[in-house]
Amino acid sequence: MTDVQSASNRPSVYPGGAIERVVSCDLTFDVGEPADVALHIAAANGRVVRAERLDVTIDRRVLPAAIELATPHGGRLHLLRTPPGILSVSYRAELAAPPATAGQPAAAIRGGLPGLPGLEQLTYLRASRYCPSDHDVGFAVAEFGGLPPGRPQVEAITQWIHSRVGYVPGSTNVHSSADDALLTGQGVCRDFAHLGITLCRALQIPARFVAVYAPGLTPMDFHAVFEAWFDGAWWTYDATCRAPREGMVRIATGRDAADTAFVNVLRGIVALQSTEVTATVTGLLPIDDNLAPHRLC
Amino acid sequence: MTDVQSASNRPSVYPGGAIERVVSCDLTFDVGEPADVALHIAAANGRVVRAERLDVTIDRRVLPAAIELATPHGGRLHLLRTPPGILSVSYRAELAAPPATAGQPAAAIRGGLPGLPGLEQLTYLRASRYCPSDHDVGFAVAEFGGLPPGRPQVEAITQWIHSRVGYVPGSTNVHSSADDALLTGQGVCRDFAHLGITLCRALQIPARFVAVYAPGLTPMDFHAVFEAWFDGAWWTYDATCRAPREGMVRIATGRDAADTAFVNVLRGIVALQSTEVTATVTGLLPIDDNLAPHRLC
Amino acid sequence: MTDVQSASNRPSVYPGGAIERVVSCDLTFDVGEPADVALHIAAANGRVVRAERLDVTIDRRVLPAAIELATPHGGRLHLLRTPPGILSVSYRAELAAPPATAGQPAAAIRGGLPGLPGLEQLTYLRASRYCPSDHDVGFAVAEFGGLPPGRPQVEAITQWIHSRVGYVPGSTNVHSSADDALLTGQGVCRDFAHLGITLCRALQIPARFVAVYAPGLTPMDFHAVFEAWFDGAWWTYDATCRAPREGMVRIATGRDAADTAFVNVLRGIVALQSTEVTATVTGLLPIDDNLAPHRLC
Amino acid sequence: MTDVQSASNRPSVYPGGAIERVVSCDLTFDVGEPADVALHIAAANGRVVRAERLDVTIDRRVLPAAIELATPHGGRLHLLRTPPGILSVSYRAELAAPPATAGQPAAAIRGGLPGLPGLEQLTYLRASRYCPSDHDVGFAVAEFGGLPPGRPQVEAITQWIHSRVGYVPGSTNVHSSADDALLTGQGVCRDFAHLGITLCRALQIPARFVAVYAPGLTPMDFHAVFEAWFDGAWWTYDATCRAPREGMVRIATGRDAADTAFVNVLRGIVALQSTEVTATVTGLLPIDDNLAPHRLC
Repeated sequence: MTDVQSASNRPSVYPGGAIERVVSCDLTFDVGEPADVALHIAAANGRVVRAERLDVTIDRRVLPAAIELATPHGGRLHLLRTPPGILSVSYRAELAAPPATAGQPAAAIRGGLPGLPGLEQLTYLRASRYCPSDHDVGFAVAEFGGLPPGRPQVEAITQWIHSRVGYVPGSTNVHSSADDALLTGQGVCRDFAHLGITLCRALQIPARFVAVYAPGLTPMDFHAVFEAWFDGAWWTYDATCRAPREGMVRIATGRDAADTAFVNVLRGIVALQSTEVTATVTGLLPIDDNLAPHRLC
Repeated sequence: MTDVQSASNRPSVYPGGAIERVVSCDLTFDVGEPADVALHIAAANGRVVRAERLDVTIDRRVLPAAIELATPHGGRLHLLRTPPGILSVSYRAELAAPPATAGQPAAAIRGGLPGLPGLEQLTYLRASRYCPSDHDVGFAVAEFGGLPPGRPQVEAITQWIHSRVGYVPGSTNVHSSADDALLTGQGVCRDFAHLGITLCRALQIPARFVAVYAPGLTPMDFHAVFEAWFDGAWWTYDATCRAPREGMVRIATGRDAADTAFVNVLRGIVALQSTEVTATVTGLLPIDDNLAPHRLC
Repeated sequence: MTDVQSASNRPSVYPGGAIERVVSCDLTFDVGEPADVALHIAAANGRVVRAERLDVTIDRRVLPAAIELATPHGGRLHLLRTPPGILSVSYRAELAAPPATAGQPAAAIRGGLPGLPGLEQLTYLRASRYCPSDHDVGFAVAEFGGLPPGRPQVEAITQWIHSRVGYVPGSTNVHSSADDALLTGQGVCRDFAHLGITLCRALQIPARFVAVYAPGLTPMDFHAVFEAWFDGAWWTYDATCRAPREGMVRIATGRDAADTAFVNVLRGIVALQSTEVTATVTGLLPIDDNLAPHRLC
Repeated sequence: MTDVQSASNRPSVYPGGAIERVVSCDLTFDVGEPADVALHIAAANGRVVRAERLDVTIDRRVLPAAIELATPHGGRLHLLRTPPGILSVSYRAELAAPPATAGQPAAAIRGGLPGLPGLEQLTYLRASRYCPSDHDVGFAVAEFGGLPPGRPQVEAITQWIHSRVGYVPGSTNVHSSADDALLTGQGVCRDFAHLGITLCRALQIPARFVAVYAPGLTPMDFHAVFEAWFDGAWWTYDATCRAPREGMVRIATGRDAADTAFVNVLRGIVALQSTEVTATVTGLLPIDDNLAPHRLC
C-alpha cells in the first residue's frame, strides 16, 4: 500500500470544503516475464488532493513502491519493476473542485514582440505520430482558413468533427491516425482528439492531447480531449461531446496518444487483462455546450 | 516504320470529311540492358483513323515491329523487345471527329431487374491502388451523400475537387493516392482523376481512369480524366478544368494510373530521357463548362 | 431453391467416379433497406460438378433466382435483389477430383519473341489496393533480387513470409495492406496472400489473389492464397501453410481481396450476421510441404 | 549585426587552443507578408565557442535582434519577426574541439533499481511523426530481435540500413516516413536517421534525431544522424556513412525531423530561395568506420 502523496510532498489533509471529484482505476495484468511497466494513471498536479492511493500487488503480495516521474503539465508517471505473476494496480484519488478560472490570461510578450510563441507552443505546433498536420494543411486551410484565426477556427473544427465523425468502438486501432478518422468518418475518443489537434496545427494553432478522467462518460473508461492555444492560454475541447468538460480531471498531456498511454511495457511480456475506471463528482454535472471556452486545470 | 493500322485491321483511308484531331508523342529512352517495354500511347479504337504511324528505332536503326495487345475499352498496348541503346518512339495519328452522341443510353436490364450492374460496373466500384475508396466512405457520404445519387453527386464531386485542390506540378509522386490529394490539397491531373474516382466509388458510383491526349492543354503533356457510370452510360469529367473534354482522344482506360501508364518496363534497365506530346484539333476548341454531361468516344 | 448449374449450362449428372470435394457456406444477413447484393461464393468453373445448389430466402420465403455473372478465371458471381428482412444464403457443391496436372505448360510465344507477357500477365504485374508493389520494389529487390528469377524467388518469398509473419486473427482490418503485414509482422490469410503478391510483382513476377474453399483449414473459414506466374503457368502458394493446396477449391481470382470479397453490398443497408463454411474431401488430405510446385485447377 | 553569444551569456573570448570547427549557413527567403520565422541553425551549447555571429537583414537593412529560445539538449532556436522583403540570414561560428569523451558513463539507478529509464528515455521510446515505431515492431523483432539488446542491435540496424537503403536525392519528400525508406529502399539523410530511430524504438531502445553540421559531407548541406541510448549514454550513428561523426557539430535534437527543421514559418508567407552551408575542421578529418561507439558532444 502506497500513499502517493508522500512521494510528491503534497499535503495529505485537505484544508476544508467538499470533496468534488473521486476518480479511480483498477488494472490487472498477466506478467509473463520479469517486466518494467510505466503507468500514467494518476491525476495530474494542479488541484489540492484530499486523499490519494496507489496500491500495486503481484500475486496478491505488495510490490515495492513505484518510482514517480514528473511529466509535462503536471502529469505523474509511475515506474514499476515486477516479477512474473498477476499484477494488480489500484489507484484512487479524491480531489477538490478546481478554482474558478482566474480571468483571461495575458498573452506572452517576448522581446517586445507580442504573440511570438514560446518553446511549448512551438512544440505543440509540430506534426506527431497520430497527428500528421504537415499532411493536412491543404484540407484544413480550404475548410477553415477563411475564418478568423484562433477561437473561431477551433470552434468550427470541433463542430465539424462532431458532425462528421461517428463514435464507433472498434473502428480504429493503435496505429490509426487523424487521417483515418477524417476519411473513414469513424473513431473513438482518441481519434476525435487527434483530428482536432491535427486540424489546429495545420492552421498554425498549437494543440495538444489530454488524457482525462471524465465523470459522466458512458460507458465509463479513460477519455481523451484536446487543448488549443489562442488568446494566451490553453482551451479544452471535446469533439465527442460525451462528457462535460467541467468535470474532467487531467491525467497526462502530450503531443498525442503516444505520450499519454495509461500503460507502457518497457521490458518483458505483459498482457492487460482488465480495466475498470470510475469518475464521479459531488453534486450534479453541469450541462456542457461543448463550445463555450473552458480551461482544464 | 510501322503502319499500326494494319495490325488492327482498320481502314487506312478515311472515307471523307476533314481531319479533326492530330495527336503525337515522341519518347526517348536510354536502354542499359536488353529490355521489354510496354507502351500505352496509341489512340484507342473507336474513331475512324485517317493515318496512324508508330516508328521505333534503337540507335537510329528500325526496331522490328511491336506486338499490339487489345486493352479494355478499345485501348491498344504495344510490346517492344529492345537491345541496349537509345530507344526512340514516335507515334502520330490523324483522327476523324467523333460522331454526335447518340442520345441518352438505355439502362441495362438484367434478369428483369433494372439497374443491376454488370461485371464492368462491379469492377469499377472496387478500391484500387491509388483510389482507396474503402477508406473514404465516411468522408464521401458526409460531404456528398445528401445529394441525389448519380449525376448530382458526380457534378458536386467535380466542383468540390476543382475548388479545393490546387494544380501544383511536383507536389505528388508515383506513390501518391487520392487521399494525399484530398488532404494536402495539391496534385496534378492524375491525382485529380484519382480523387474523383475514389469519391464516386465510395458513393457506390462506378468510376474509372482515362488517359487522354488533350488538345488545348497548357503546358501540353499526357492528360488524365475520369469517367463515372450513371443513367446507363459512362460520363467524362475533368476536375482540373484545364482542357475541353470535347477535344480529348482516349488512350487507355482502367482502374487508376496503374492500368494506364504510358510506359512500363517489364524487364531490363530503361530510363526515360524525354517526352514530347502534341494534340491539336482542326478549327476552334469549344469552351467547356466542365459539368455539362459529356461522353468520350 | 435454385439449381445453379442450369444457369451455367453444365451437365447436371456427374459422369462417374467418386465425389472428391464437398464445400458449402451458409450466410445470414440482416437487410435493413431494399438492397442489391453480390455474392462470390460458388466454386469456379473448371471441375466437373456432380451437384450444386444455391438456396436464397428472405424471411424464410424463397427469393427469386440470382443472376450469375462470369468473373475472371472461371469465377461466378451471383447478384441478388432483396427486400428488407433476414436474408439466408446456402450454397453447397460436390466436386470431382481435379485431373492430374497435364505436365509443364509451354511458355507463350508472341510475335516470335518468347517470354513476352500477355494482357493477363501485364494486369497482374500492376500495383493494386492492398498490394502496393510500386512502393516495395526496393525492399523486394534487396531481399530477394539476388536469387534467380521466377520459381526460386517465389519460393523464397513464401518461406520468408511464413517465417516472419504471425497468423493473428484481428490484427488487421479491411483497410490493411501488404505493407502493414510486412511491418507489423502480423495478419490473417488475406494479408499473407497480399504480401506474397506484392513482393512478386515488385520483382516483375505476375501474381494474383485466389479466394478458396480449403479442406483441412482450422478453424474452418473462407481462405485465400496467391498464384504467381513463371515457366508459362500460374502456380499456387499459401504462405500461411494452414491447409494443403491440393484440396483447395477455387472460388474467385483477382488482383487482391477487393476483387474477391465473398459479399459486396451494392445498394441498401445490409449487415452480415453469421457465416458458416465447410470444406471436406473424400479420403485423406495429402501432406503439403507448401513449396513443391502446385497448380490449382 | 548580432552577437549571439551575448544572448546566451557565454564567454566571447575563447580561452586558448586552436579553433577546430568552423560552420556557417547563409539562407535567403522571399517574405511575401509580415511573418514570424523560427530558425534552428545555431550550434548547440556544449562546446566553448570562440566567435559566433548571426546576421539578419531584410532588404539589406538590419533586422532587430532575434529572440533565442533554449531547445532540448543544448539547442538554440531563434525567432524573427520580419516585414515583407528579401530576408537574409547569415550564421557563422568557430568552435573548439570537443573534449575527449570522459570514459564510460554510469548507468542511472532509480529507486535502487538499475536500468529504469528516466523521462528523457521514455520520451524517445515513443513513436513520432516520421518514426512510427509502433507499426514496425514485428519487422524489427524478426530481423534484429535475436541479437543481444543494446549496442549489438544498434550496430546491426546501422549496417542493415547502410546496405539496404540507397541515398537518392529527391526520392522522398517532407511527408515521407521511415516506412517509406524501408520499403522503397531509398531516401536522404533524414530518412536514414528516421529508419534507424524507428527500428531502435521498436526494439525498446530509446533513439532520437540530431541535425548537425557535418564537415566532410559531399555535397555540403545540413545533415542528420541518430542517437541511441544504451549502456547509460547516447551514442551517435550515421547509417549514410557520408561524413565522419567526429567532426560533426550538433544543431538540434528531437524526436524526428519535425523537431529540428532549420526553418519553420509560424505566420505569413515565406519562400526559401537559397541555402548555403559550410562546415570545416582544422586539420584532417578522421576516417570513420561508422560503427565504433561515438558520442557527439
